[in-house]
Amino acid sequence: MRIAVVGTGLIGASLGLAWRACGHSVAGQDLDAAALEAAIAMGAFDEAVGFEEARRREALVLAVPLDAVCAMLLRLRDGAPNPALILDVASLQVPVLRAAGDLEGFVASHPMAGREGNGPAQADPAIFRGQPWIYQPGAAQEAALRLIGETGAHPVPLEAELHDRAVALTSHLPQLLAVALARAVARHAGEPGVAEVVGPGLHGALRLARAQWSMWGPLLAQQGARDAALLEELARELQSLAAALAAESQAELHAAFDEAKISVGDIFRRTK
Amino acid sequence: MRIAVVGTGLIGASLGLAWRACGHSVAGQDLDAAALEAAIAMGAFDEAVGFEEARRREALVLAVPLDAVCAMLLRLRDGAPNPALILDVASLQVPVLRAAGDLEGFVASHPMAGREGNGPAQADPAIFRGQPWIYQPGAAQEAALRLIGETGAHPVPLEAELHDRAVALTSHLPQLLAVALARAVARHAGEPGVAEVVGPGLHGALRLARAQWSMWGPLLAQQGARDAALLEELARELQSLAAALAAESQAELHAAFDEAKISVGDIFRRTK
Repeated sequence: MRIAVVGTGLIGASLGLAWRACGHSVAGQDLDAAALEAAIAMGAFDEAVGFEEARRREALVLAVPLDAVCAMLLRLRDGAPNPALILDVASLQVPVLRAAGDLEGFVASHPMAGREGNGPAQADPAIFRGQPWIYQPGAAQEAALRLIGETGAHPVPLEAELHDRAVALTSHLPQLLAVALARAVARHAGEPGVAEVVGPGLHGALRLARAQWSMWGPLLAQQGARDAALLEELARELQSLAAALAAESQAELHAAFDEAKISVGDIFRRTK
Repeated sequence: MRIAVVGTGLIGASLGLAWRACGHSVAGQDLDAAALEAAIAMGAFDEAVGFEEARRREALVLAVPLDAVCAMLLRLRDGAPNPALILDVASLQVPVLRAAGDLEGFVASHPMAGREGNGPAQADPAIFRGQPWIYQPGAAQEAALRLIGETGAHPVPLEAELHDRAVALTSHLPQLLAVALARAVARHAGEPGVAEVVGPGLHGALRLARAQWSMWGPLLAQQGARDAALLEELARELQSLAAALAAESQAELHAAFDEAKISVGDIFRRTK
């Protein structure tokens, strides 16, 4: 298949690597010439194309931040010929579907994949393997499912509003938490001894705090109230743990640890 | 060297694997017969020994929770002959030094190492590689440094009180945060769509929530007030992000993301 990917960052370049390994021809497009060049140099794309050229491929994949996806979808509705399949990988479905309107061949989707770092240098075709990839059923669904399956992800249909509500919990909350933790830790990072005792636990907890604002800004703008409510809830949870610590209530803390352990087991069992 | 490790959980068994690979003879001791047997079966130890037998080896390593370490140190002060080197790997230094008193040959220490899961089944000799391993200078320091170095960790001397204060930030805070997040997520885990969109971000954020209470209980009992203050501080940070989200203040959120990214870069650069 002749595919074009717009956006040659971590996700776009990882998709290029995965699909090229399956024998597809994959062209890349990016406003950031350095990112595009780096992605081609590392083998993620066969060649660079312009947006109008990308539009004449058999499949067009939009791997750019949400606001750019929406702008491109509006542009693709201008009446000029489009590919039989247009796929996006932004992380919210409702605003993308609103922008797409009745655009033919469009399938909104969201791969639950990522890794530390940004940009094509961090690209890895394995990040999709075994992960869910949410999609909105549509006219071009079959072609979309084939491309999704070829990355090793398993396609999961999920109604747009439910998806957007659920990612506030499973994606926005951990992201905002990592940002908050990074700021709290930063205030103490210069204290004596701190640099010496940074280990894998803190490293893992701060992994997401390196995320890019250009990707997150448009997502948070859509879900502000929902995300705020979850942060408030978590803040109350922290305060309740703090109260148990201050009161030296080992029984309460013990119960919290046991509950957490059971919950985590449940959450990940259910997603298998 | 003839080493005995008391405690054949994740850390104890990982140490056994690492030191046996360097040619040492390593015996294991654990009150949990199943854990001991599993650790020997996986090759972490040559053989099982009793505590009094362990005490007659050249080096005795206490890889048990803090309260058990303190109880063993008191017992080792009974006047019977002890090894030339006694090393602990509990995560706080002040209470351990207090329990050790003037016990000869004792070096308090703390490897900044860990991984998901518990017990010997998760043991991995590579978890120490490249990580700091804090120690308290003492009479048996040279032998301790040799053993620490052989795991691939780099030994770092750090005054006990400074160490204990710093780990509240770098270790207790991320741990308590993961517990709080697990409980908050658990309240919503049954909502439609949530199971479908659990991805690597949430997985990473909840990794620590599987930790064992038997290890953490004694640590939190020592540092309650200190840990509570940090949790309160983080709760305020979450509330401030929530307020920015609710007010749709993109500028404030943007600044928070940028600060977080820079902070994380600084924190990990400083620890290289």
